[in-house]
Amino acid sequence: MRLLLINPNTSAAMTARMEQEAAAALAPDVTLTGLTAARGLPYIASRAEAQLAGGAVLETLAEHQAGYDAAVIAAFGDPGLIAARELFDLPVVGMAEAAMLTACLLGQRFGLVTFSGTLLPWYEDAVALSGLSARCACVRAVAAAFRSVAEVQHEFEGEIVALANRAVIEDGADTVILAGAPLTGLAVRVRDAVPVPLIDPLAAALGQAQAVVRLGARPPRAGRFARPPAKPATGLAPALRRWIERDDG
Amino acid sequence: MRLLLINPNTSAAMTARMEQEAAAALAPDVTLTGLTAARGLPYIASRAEAQLAGGAVLETLAEHQAGYDAAVIAAFGDPGLIAARELFDLPVVGMAEAAMLTACLLGQRFGLVTFSGTLLPWYEDAVALSGLSARCACVRAVAAAFRSVAEVQHEFEGEIVALANRAVIEDGADTVILAGAPLTGLAVRVRDAVPVPLIDPLAAALGQAQAVVRLGARPPRAGRFARPPAKPATGLAPALRRWIERDDG
Amino acid sequence: MRLLLINPNTSAAMTARMEQEAAAALAPDVTLTGLTAARGLPYIASRAEAQLAGGAVLETLAEHQAGYDAAVIAAFGDPGLIAARELFDLPVVGMAEAAMLTACLLGQRFGLVTFSGTLLPWYEDAVALSGLSARCACVRAVAAAFRSVAEVQHEFEGEIVALANRAVIEDGADTVILAGAPLTGLAVRVRDAVPVPLIDPLAAALGQAQAVVRLGARPPRAGRFARPPAKPATGLAPALRRWIERDDG
Amino acid sequence: MRLLLINPNTSAAMTARMEQEAAAALAPDVTLTGLTAARGLPYIASRAEAQLAGGAVLETLAEHQAGYDAAVIAAFGDPGLIAARELFDLPVVGMAEAAMLTACLLGQRFGLVTFSGTLLPWYEDAVALSGLSARCACVRAVAAAFRSVAEVQHEFEGEIVALANRAVIEDGADTVILAGAPLTGLAVRVRDAVPVPLIDPLAAALGQAQAVVRLGARPPRAGRFARPPAKPATGLAPALRRWIERDDG
Amino acid sequence: MRLLLINPNTSAAMTARMEQEAAAALAPDVTLTGLTAARGLPYIASRAEAQLAGGAVLETLAEHQAGYDAAVIAAFGDPGLIAARELFDLPVVGMAEAAMLTACLLGQRFGLVTFSGTLLPWYEDAVALSGLSARCACVRAVAAAFRSVAEVQHEFEGEIVALANRAVIEDGADTVILAGAPLTGLAVRVRDAVPVPLIDPLAAALGQAQAVVRLGARPPRAGRFARPPAKPATGLAPALRRWIERDDG
Amino acid sequence: MRLLLINPNTSAAMTARMEQEAAAALAPDVTLTGLTAARGLPYIASRAEAQLAGGAVLETLAEHQAGYDAAVIAAFGDPGLIAARELFDLPVVGMAEAAMLTACLLGQRFGLVTFSGTLLPWYEDAVALSGLSARCACVRAVAAAFRSVAEVQHEFEGEIVALANRAVIEDGADTVILAGAPLTGLAVRVRDAVPVPLIDPLAAALGQAQAVVRLGARPPRAGRFARPPAKPATGLAPALRRWIERDDG
Repeated sequence: MRLLLINPNTSAAMTARMEQEAAAALAPDVTLTGLTAARGLPYIASRAEAQLAGGAVLETLAEHQAGYDAAVIAAFGDPGLIAARELFDLPVVGMAEAAMLTACLLGQRFGLVTFSGTLLPWYEDAVALSGLSARCACVRAVAAAFRSVAEVQHEFEGEIVALANRAVIEDGADTVILAGAPLTGLAVRVRDAVPVPLIDPLAAALGQAQAVVRLGARPPRAGRFARPPAKPATGLAPALRRWIERDDG
Repeated sequence: MRLLLINPNTSAAMTARMEQEAAAALAPDVTLTGLTAARGLPYIASRAEAQLAGGAVLETLAEHQAGYDAAVIAAFGDPGLIAARELFDLPVVGMAEAAMLTACLLGQRFGLVTFSGTLLPWYEDAVALSGLSARCACVRAVAAAFRSVAEVQHEFEGEIVALANRAVIEDGADTVILAGAPLTGLAVRVRDAVPVPLIDPLAAALGQAQAVVRLGARPPRAGRFARPPAKPATGLAPALRRWIERDDG
Repeated sequence: MRLLLINPNTSAAMTARMEQEAAAALAPDVTLTGLTAARGLPYIASRAEAQLAGGAVLETLAEHQAGYDAAVIAAFGDPGLIAARELFDLPVVGMAEAAMLTACLLGQRFGLVTFSGTLLPWYEDAVALSGLSARCACVRAVAAAFRSVAEVQHEFEGEIVALANRAVIEDGADTVILAGAPLTGLAVRVRDAVPVPLIDPLAAALGQAQAVVRLGARPPRAGRFARPPAKPATGLAPALRRWIERDDG
Repeated sequence: MRLLLINPNTSAAMTARMEQEAAAALAPDVTLTGLTAARGLPYIASRAEAQLAGGAVLETLAEHQAGYDAAVIAAFGDPGLIAARELFDLPVVGMAEAAMLTACLLGQRFGLVTFSGTLLPWYEDAVALSGLSARCACVRAVAAAFRSVAEVQHEFEGEIVALANRAVIEDGADTVILAGAPLTGLAVRVRDAVPVPLIDPLAAALGQAQAVVRLGARPPRAGRFARPPAKPATGLAPALRRWIERDDG
Repeated sequence: MRLLLINPNTSAAMTARMEQEAAAALAPDVTLTGLTAARGLPYIASRAEAQLAGGAVLETLAEHQAGYDAAVIAAFGDPGLIAARELFDLPVVGMAEAAMLTACLLGQRFGLVTFSGTLLPWYEDAVALSGLSARCACVRAVAAAFRSVAEVQHEFEGEIVALANRAVIEDGADTVILAGAPLTGLAVRVRDAVPVPLIDPLAAALGQAQAVVRLGARPPRAGRFARPPAKPATGLAPALRRWIERDDG
Repeated sequence: MRLLLINPNTSAAMTARMEQEAAAALAPDVTLTGLTAARGLPYIASRAEAQLAGGAVLETLAEHQAGYDAAVIAAFGDPGLIAARELFDLPVVGMAEAAMLTACLLGQRFGLVTFSGTLLPWYEDAVALSGLSARCACVRAVAAAFRSVAEVQHEFEGEIVALANRAVIEDGADTVILAGAPLTGLAVRVRDAVPVPLIDPLAAALGQAQAVVRLGARPPRAGRFARPPAKPATGLAPALRRWIERDDG
């Protein structure tokens, strides 16, 4: 099984880190290829940035998806998820959606803990989009400003563990999702410091991608996610333009 | 009061038609300027296309919004609405959201009628995003394929009136929204053929834009729609890059 | 365009104040006529009082609505709104409903702040009736008892501004509605003291009334708001009795 | 135990019929007194009429409630229920609310069948007010116009039984409520013609009123249904004015 | 009228206490028979224990239900309620469901107060199952560990009254349910110490059972609660096996 | 990774078939052990039967769970799922819940198609329990009675494919779940006959079980699924009694 990991941010270092952390969540017969967005922001933290990153996800998929069994959009908030799922035939999995669905298997209500308050509206939108608001116990963020997004999981490890414990005790969370690609790997490292299952969104997304591929289902030719008919386009990246125009010649 | 009308499609003819139809919905002290997306699709009909059109809306606003009191995104489905509302200080109104909120003033449940089945998933998403699903009686589309999007409101006038009447009789709609920018102007023309109020989304959006401007409220400096902090960006249209980087020099 | 402003309270001074504050929210081609309920309570603060005030609204409309383009029920809580909308052909707008719908254009969640705790159950019912509970961040009231309803917006200005700020910071409100006819005009006066848009329900209702009239829609002849058939009535105010009996002779 | 049955319509014949049918639903230690509204409509069929009937219910309770243990508002749609529950200390039960709550004990989803389509918006509002929309399988009405409201349960017996069976088979109802005071007594008469429990709203309301009285709970002195403070009133029926003014001298 | 009270716990002392407390809630023409589960736990406090207790309820009903008009499952949480309602023809009432439905007649939102935190997940599930989550103001439990379940209503009387008052003041409850069979009788004893109606679940369940029986409805022969067809079974208690196999010979 | 497959029915042939079909959904490093309920019904088709089967699931887990990484409850409807998840430390996955969560990754709304109408109430309850009702397009069943549950997927193959297509066309399903253990393996066989992804609940459950195990999360020591404290029990199967009593000696 071949999986594609698309980092919608422009940070290649983040892509490399996620590739490395992914290993533990892959079955022996699975390989993973990481790709970094060619344009956009070094990290996404708002709905406006996610709007633009979603376009970059579509461009990346149009250029690289051939030959893969499924793709993971590797930013919590899932920029471009619905659009990508509609446009392409391979299954596309988002880290936020996958983490929340996985959490539903392990408890009634999940808490969401992240490292920056500026992410909250975007992550709240992801909860709403999933239709799982009733199962979300809280969305909490570290109040302080971080110094380096690359190091934030170490810088704020204590604060994040404390918030996860408050999610359990004060908000009634049965599981806690450590949300945000920069926190990848933290869940396993601190799992003994919080008394409920901690969910790493990258691991959850990879788990869901593998589950979906092993189902062996056909891509949709009807319904809300059937590929749209061909249409002329102007001003788009070449591979994306060709895919939308169904210019296969 | 100065309003901006942004057509997220690349069709200048559609922009011109909307500018012309807008006149009846404007108070004497209001002027309107229409703009057409510089890149993208000639008309939007899917979530993937809306993802890309949303980026074009941000680019257009970044370049042109200075000096306007409010902007209207002139495609039902509201591409880029949340992102634009977050990124810019002027009020931004979407045709779908405005039509649905206006419908809530005139009846308990609204029906949505449009000219093509390919639009349904996108419009359903717009209903869900508005949080008004419980007040939506139906989303119906003409089953046949249209010949010309520019003429579709004439080509399918009979079918659309018939669907609007079915929305009332079979689905319990108290009002009917004629959804899709290409239907602009149809509601007034056929209003005596349907026994409930017909809502023209462009007129509704202009009405809401005027209502919001006359409130005299300040733009948010806190909450989910405060402007995000500056951030470096690569590969974006120049005006949008400068706005995101807050490069005011 | 001619608008009717119906004060369901018996206080003519409140009507006069609202007429005066209304000017800023009206387009140049709009005139407004204020009317005061002939019987009932000097101000409404409970569901029981709203039940009675709703009857007075119907009596007033039956007597005076001829020749107007739309009517505004000028008490937050919207006494008689559904009944009036059903019984009469002109559009009828309520201050609470209009304020909440307008707030939905400016943010994800609105807070509601008012001057007296006795109003809370009634205002909560208005939120529920609108179907917008999921978008309501909080309903907050000043804890202390006010001295004069006519002066309460000055007496409690500081407390109300403080509650609005708490609605933003503690409850996650993106906008704040200053609820209750006695607060008319306060939103504009204190708008720089709260970091999100403040919504004045009277201005919102006038904005929505103008928006609806400019739509040019027909009154319903079917659906939940078609005028009921004629029926004999006893013990009602003469104009209302004639309207219900359709005694047009 | 002494129960009050308030008919919000002006038809004394209907009151008499309900008193007679009530006997089977009363325990041996319960007595019932019927009262007819002094003003209003001979039967209520719209939200506007219910608005006015609600006022009549308050007037009747203010004059007669002393010495009773609970009151039943004997019109499906429950005019004045919330207001009465707030204003008076004795428990007040509505036929619609009681029928729906009782239905929840007997099945997952209830159907609602009535004798006239003009009643539908009002009854739908009653379902929504109860918060039980998710448990309502359907609201159906006989399509034809009835000749006499007093005889409608005989005139349409076959149509109503047929609709009840369709509610079971087509809509998935586990119980069926025969809604509308003029149908009182029909449920027992036709109970063998429908394969699910039929619910008579008068019997349900009397059952709930007895259940509430036997609880022995105190009236609220706090919360949403505590009696409002005294307030001056003008133009109201004398007993109601005195009760609102707390003029006990 | 003959009612059956089934205690799903193995404590005969608890059954005896409930029989004694029941008297005040029964009409003069009603008799009650108490039964105790033959196997299981001395008191139920988790979903796992409720799963097992539900089986015991079915066994008890299969053996004893003949000749009764209705049955009450006398544990808050209603173990086996849906299964019993489906399997048997007599109406079956649960204490949790009955208490919540009764509370809906007395206020907009109910609070739930109990004596042990270990009960919370089970009681929360009961709220969710009822579909009344939107009307539940809070579910609160005494934080300390109790010494004797038989004496807990005396041991924690002060704490429970305090929590009930906090449910009113902090959570906005209009009524408070004192949840858990071991609290039977407490509501009446402390009703003057809390300013809203207190609901005793046993009294509520008996009231609802009487209300349902007096309706005179037929058992369902269709819908979700029609008795399942005969099926062979192995390893079940004899009476239950015969009932499921419809072995009436 | 070692997975346990618990068939809550007493049919060993069904267990064997599921073990065989499972192979395609397992990664190379996963082994699966099947177990059959020792008592109960040959197949479960009602909530009453599921209540009893849930007890059997707990008994089986208590006796056999040691040494496994996760367990799958192999009946659509998930008997005993919540109880098992609470009582045991290993992750427990239900076929219905897993199928629905997986479906959420592949489309907005899922349809549910099964082979017998008697299953509908039970499956509807499973949808409601998952909190995903808003994403369920339909629950449909073959109308005819089947001859042999072991052969039903062949007997009704045509009918089931037809219903799946109607779920897409008439109900708007983006995916279709073929629900019920006896349909295991059918989804892959007929996947080219339906234009949307078909979901096999056994494959989905195995995929989710593997995903959860690869997360590497700790079992909960707090929250709604922490293991309950020790408690004396009578009349239970020995291994379950010891587990509940925490009799580890």
